[in-house]
Amino acid sequence: MNDCVFCKIIREEIPSAKIYEDADVLAFLDIKPVNPGHTLLIPKAHFEKMTGTPDKVVGDLFITAKKLMGALKNVTAADYVALSVIGIDVPHFHIHLIPRYFNDGLASFWPTKKYKEGEIFEMAKKIKQSL
Amino acid sequence: MNDCVFCKIIREEIPSAKIYEDADVLAFLDIKPVNPGHTLLIPKAHFEKMTGTPDKVVGDLFITAKKLMGALKNVTAADYVALSVIGIDVPHFHIHLIPRYFNDGLASFWPTKKYKEGEIFEMAKKIKQSL
Repeated sequence: MNDCVFCKIIREEIPSAKIYEDADVLAFLDIKPVNPGHTLLIPKAHFEKMTGTPDKVVGDLFITAKKLMGALKNVTAADYVALSVIGIDVPHFHIHLIPRYFNDGLASFWPTKKYKEGEIFEMAKKIKQSL
Repeated sequence: MNDCVFCKIIREEIPSAKIYEDADVLAFLDIKPVNPGHTLLIPKAHFEKMTGTPDKVVGDLFITAKKLMGALKNVTAADYVALSVIGIDVPHFHIHLIPRYFNDGLASFWPTKKYKEGEIFEMAKKIKQSL
């Protein structure tokens, strides 16, 4: 895609700090990291969202993510590496891999809610029917 | 694993609101949802972390995640569905799928930092060397 910032990074029209590349995927450091080592992993083919990406590409990308997570943890001495697909940032499917520390002061999750009596099973039924 | 809460859910020793199940994976609604429809997707085999899970299991699980994301978005009328692997909650590898709304008042990301001149390339070099 001509206008896509990640496609421009793949074509090296925009420089990036690459950490891994093969025929199908590219991983590079986010220039605005949540913590140093924060990595973006993308398929080289342009798919806007994970839901529109072929199964094979999805499977292979997350297998690569798994491999990178180990290296990131070792190099950054992170307590853990979080994986996140946001879905509303850059419209080229990508995975965030974020080195995290127990004392980094960031939330590890969002506040949670409760279902009212029976609501959870109603919701599950609707989702099952739509699959 | 005898003591694992997710293994107990798989064995139906703990009830759950299931939305999808096959020979290898189970998806059920989180009882404390960030938003209604918040789903946990797990492999039936017990692996503590994503980094210790076989490639095939990882690939298949995220392909299933992709399929569920579409259904979740439709049923909950979410603006988007976020995918997250936290890595420090229940020690049975699992994926969170979270219906999100532009007006749900939750952060969609964390605050970001900046690298000092050259630091990003130093970091990339170290990670590449450790892969």
